Amino acid sequence: MSSLDSQKRADTAYPIHEHLAARWSPRAFRQASLGREQIGSLFEAARWSASSFNAQPWRFVYAERSADPEGFERILGTLMDMNQAWARNASLLMIASANTVARGGTNRKAVYDTGQAVANLVTQATAMGLHAHQMGGFSGDAARKVLALPDEWEPVVAVAIGYRDEPDTLAEPMAEREVSAREREPLSAIVFTGTANSPAALG
Amino acid sequence: MSSLDSQKRADTAYPIHEHLAARWSPRAFRQASLGREQIGSLFEAARWSASSFNAQPWRFVYAERSADPEGFERILGTLMDMNQAWARNASLLMIASANTVARGGTNRKAVYDTGQAVANLVTQATAMGLHAHQMGGFSGDAARKVLALPDEWEPVVAVAIGYRDEPDTLAEPMAEREVSAREREPLSAIVFTGTANSPAALG
Repeated sequence: MSSLDSQKRADTAYPIHEHLAARWSPRAFRQASLGREQIGSLFEAARWSASSFNAQPWRFVYAERSADPEGFERILGTLMDMNQAWARNASLLMIASANTVARGGTNRKAVYDTGQAVANLVTQATAMGLHAHQMGGFSGDAARKVLALPDEWEPVVAVAIGYRDEPDTLAEPMAEREVSAREREPLSAIVFTGTANSPAALG
Repeated sequence: MSSLDSQKRADTAYPIHEHLAARWSPRAFRQASLGREQIGSLFEAARWSASSFNAQPWRFVYAERSADPEGFERILGTLMDMNQAWARNASLLMIASANTVARGGTNRKAVYDTGQAVANLVTQATAMGLHAHQMGGFSGDAARKVLALPDEWEPVVAVAIGYRDEPDTLAEPMAEREVSAREREPLSAIVFTGTANSPAALG
């Protein structure tokens, strides 16, 4: 593990699995290609995620920078400018969508379930020595258009995946943010026991 | 790994991390207590999840069956009858909510981010030899009331966590479902490359 990855490691009050502790969202990526096996494993991890009534509402459109530069530029162009600046060096970009149509109506768990699938994909990426950076900062309307997303798909998140590069390859203020400490609310702000009025005494 | 856990293991076209492959959602739980360290690690895994603008919108209310039988019954009572039948043997029940209020308005990623946090909690559970079963089948209105959830929290999912028991401890048709093969759409139904018109050739 590099010294930056050590520095970025989650500062946990209780031990958590290495691949969860090691996950963070860098912006500095170095241009490198992924293998077909790596890409297969990423999506396979998403595929076996849990979903309500096993509806499997997650849908992914990806493009590799080296193998499909046109497709890559297409997804890149849907990102906010600030994200385009660094995401262009990732190995793979994707838009994850939630299929909101279910038998007999709307799948109200589609977005939640898609979050789970992407979380598992990111865990798999970490397990393979890759890093992923999820972005809400993209245009869903642009993604619908350039990626020909069906009406029933709701584009939820853009994800950049690849190999991390050194922070000094970034311009400021991104370079400084790349090395800053990760922060979280204490457990007592998010975990309650019995009722929502009673923060859990977990420290 | 028990023969049932082997049988339930994800049948993957590409290798995925053991804790992702081993995850499944049983209904047969045996009455057992969790330790404080285990509970701390579960929520710590959720706490370090990624979220849009680091808003950390996930909120958890849990109760342990043995340590807080009243709280446990309170959450149990929000579940659909079919879920109550088996979930009453879990070690811990919880309701995960998404805090939909953000600085200056609505956090439109709150539900998605909460999905990620719970997915990481479930990965942590698997890493510790526990099983988790998420349920959409509960009453959000009842949860709001009995758990005193603030208005801005949207209850999203109920989760049962504990140690797995043998399938024959369940009544039918649950016992049969407990041992049935897990099924997923092929990768070509969920992964596309370039545009949504082009299924990825990942097998």
